Amino acid sequence: MELNVQDRTTPPPVVVLVRPQLGENIGKAARAMLNFGLLEMRLVAPRDGWPNPAAGPAASGADVVLEQARVYESVADAVADCSQVYATTVRKRGVTKPVVTPEVAAGEIHAGPGRSAILFGPERSGLETDDVAVARTIITVPINPEFGSLNLAQAVILVAYEWSKGVALAQPPETELPPVAPQGELDGMIGQLEEMLEGVGYFFPPDRVPATKRTLRTLLTKPGWSSQEVRTLRGVLSTLARPRGR
Amino acid sequence: MELNVQDRTTPPPVVVLVRPQLGENIGKAARAMLNFGLLEMRLVAPRDGWPNPAAGPAASGADVVLEQARVYESVADAVADCSQVYATTVRKRGVTKPVVTPEVAAGEIHAGPGRSAILFGPERSGLETDDVAVARTIITVPINPEFGSLNLAQAVILVAYEWSKGVALAQPPETELPPVAPQGELDGMIGQLEEMLEGVGYFFPPDRVPATKRTLRTLLTKPGWSSQEVRTLRGVLSTLARPRGR
Repeated sequence: MELNVQDRTTPPPVVVLVRPQLGENIGKAARAMLNFGLLEMRLVAPRDGWPNPAAGPAASGADVVLEQARVYESVADAVADCSQVYATTVRKRGVTKPVVTPEVAAGEIHAGPGRSAILFGPERSGLETDDVAVARTIITVPINPEFGSLNLAQAVILVAYEWSKGVALAQPPETELPPVAPQGELDGMIGQLEEMLEGVGYFFPPDRVPATKRTLRTLLTKPGWSSQEVRTLRGVLSTLARPRGR
Repeated sequence: MELNVQDRTTPPPVVVLVRPQLGENIGKAARAMLNFGLLEMRLVAPRDGWPNPAAGPAASGADVVLEQARVYESVADAVADCSQVYATTVRKRGVTKPVVTPEVAAGEIHAGPGRSAILFGPERSGLETDDVAVARTIITVPINPEFGSLNLAQAVILVAYEWSKGVALAQPPETELPPVAPQGELDGMIGQLEEMLEGVGYFFPPDRVPATKRTLRTLLTKPGWSSQEVRTLRGVLSTLARPRGR
């Protein structure tokens, strides 16, 4: 059945727990999510495997979230079908990405179009720089600068709570902006470019390669290109990669 | 010293835990409070007395809140110096009092004048009717009607979070986005790319050239890249344009 414009709403965001450590905290995050109507949890490389017997009791009845949780090997895999990826961080980092509050992020997620993913890091250390690089936008909870001690479930509940406020208000997007391409399509383009650059010796010296790749990823993630735009750029790259001299 | 109008701010609200059961939950509530700048906790008839050795470890460093916590025999005693008393409840009750969200309550608390108190009930049962009767207003967190499972610390953190939004400490984090490159720099990059693409026969058929160039310009203008990002991309293009086969 085809939906008409009135029926079209932005899907709820996916909560991605990146390398979570304790099953108990996964359960608490599930409980926090379901309180505010979020159902879809994805787990990237959970430390103690999955399923985890400690998760259920901590979920206090939010079993439906745990039962449907899916496991991925990498952040890129977990967000491949998502158009907009947010990384939650506590500290400011030296990254040139927009930083928004949970409130602003919730508004953006409702505005859509396309599905969003929200990344939460491991309990102790938070997200690594490479995880953050996948995201277009950073969510930072404005917190007491002298005492910032949010645990995983608390960070999840604040973001879920802000999202839930907009559910009743959610309107179909007014503008006809094309949806942002799923992250997997962008990754494909970035991979193609990196391969070309490797072939011509761009990545040098070797110890700078990860930083250079992050820089490229960041600036190519920034635009929020549509699928059509990504296809156009891949065509450009393919043309540039063709043998020359003809 | 008398404060003038500009200096006069409404004091932060007092968090009143009514007959709390577990010391651990008192500690978690303290942690939730301090994250969002609330310092004053009052305890009404804590079940296991006070101080409670289980509270400290659960507070994760929010000791200042626990050390200053004061114990009262009744709700009435605990809120005697407060101008506005809120009772947090999950369910609607048969009481004829205004029911507001944490967001609305936070706005009222900031508007003042006078100090506010927010009552939170025991973990299992919530506030009794007699406790609610002391309050002028009820705070209810809008929650998933099919799964309402907020624990004490979570209820506290949502209310504290909403309050903190109205305070100076709750400024949205500054974004460190670099300025967008002047159009001339972008044009330089677009010109470089077009020249490369002309060299490899990308623009074909001829009657499509203007539309294709517009498409490329549109998608390269969309990001709002900084000067540094434009320079990086020009470096990428220069590398790709170098003679190959070496």
